[in-house]
Amino acid sequence: MRAIVHRSGIQEGLVLVSAMHITAAVYVNDDERGLLSDIERWADRLAPPGDYAHHRSGETNGDAHLKNLLLGHQVVVPITAGDLDLGPWEQIFYAEFDGRRRKRVIVKAIGA
Amino acid sequence: MRAIVHRSGIQEGLVLVSAMHITAAVYVNDDERGLLSDIERWADRLAPPGDYAHHRSGETNGDAHLKNLLLGHQVVVPITAGDLDLGPWEQIFYAEFDGRRRKRVIVKAIGA
Amino acid sequence: MRAIVHRSGIQEGLVLVSAMHITAAVYVNDDERGLLSDIERWADRLAPPGDYAHHRSGETNGDAHLKNLLLGHQVVVPITAGDLDLGPWEQIFYAEFDGRRRKRVIVKAIGA
Repeated sequence: MRAIVHRSGIQEGLVLVSAMHITAAVYVNDDERGLLSDIERWADRLAPPGDYAHHRSGETNGDAHLKNLLLGHQVVVPITAGDLDLGPWEQIFYAEFDGRRRKRVIVKAIGA
Repeated sequence: MRAIVHRSGIQEGLVLVSAMHITAAVYVNDDERGLLSDIERWADRLAPPGDYAHHRSGETNGDAHLKNLLLGHQVVVPITAGDLDLGPWEQIFYAEFDGRRRKRVIVKAIGA
Repeated sequence: MRAIVHRSGIQEGLVLVSAMHITAAVYVNDDERGLLSDIERWADRLAPPGDYAHHRSGETNGDAHLKNLLLGHQVVVPITAGDLDLGPWEQIFYAEFDGRRRKRVIVKAIGA
């Protein structure tokens, strides 16, 4: 991320970080191991694996789609003085709920 | 959406798609019928109709406001080579939880 | 917010409003007192205080991190004709779930 922003040469702007898949999440939080397991457990509680109408289409990942909506699939990060302008504990995370295909994240920076 | 981006003439940038109402959602997901009903049912489970403090103001749509927060009211989509840069299964959806007024969605593209 | 956008001189663009902390939320909703208490109660129900793995790191605010994910930590607001382009009932809110440190919100406008 940081390298992409540096390469873009943008000094003041915004950068979008967005999962290109709807069974993954991109979110900002603290890089603390216990917390990351709390988030995983929480998402599993509110969007549990189970029997979804979506599964009649041959899929089995209904809960992954709901987790994507719960945690969000994109963040926008400000760029200030050519660098990511994140708070002291903020880190960008990618969470994969499906794990069966190669996934892509798009990073798009705009500004001047 | 696509037509608006084409008309804007922007080749590289970002486009914001945002509900102008707080009882609706704008989200990105897969255009699969079963999944859309799963999402509706899920939102109803986590933000059920019921007796909300908001209703003392004369409204009856407390759950619609919570569904708006659960699913999100906006997405930002990258524009690459003059077109929406969405993943293979990504579609933009508007969900209405109130249905009593005419609603608007704002689409705002920036870039060059 | 409005004053920042005016000072920026930007006529058409986007402004990001983002909490710089992961125990707070920034969201758009209606400025109605009952609704704000509904939102607080709802967040407490879906992300209750409790015993989280995160607490083994010495913290006690696991639920605040989950509320941040539930309600979202940022919004992007369109700027049209030099002003915030919000819907008739839309207001931007900052919600603090931790309350123990001085917090910052970043406001970043881009456009022309």
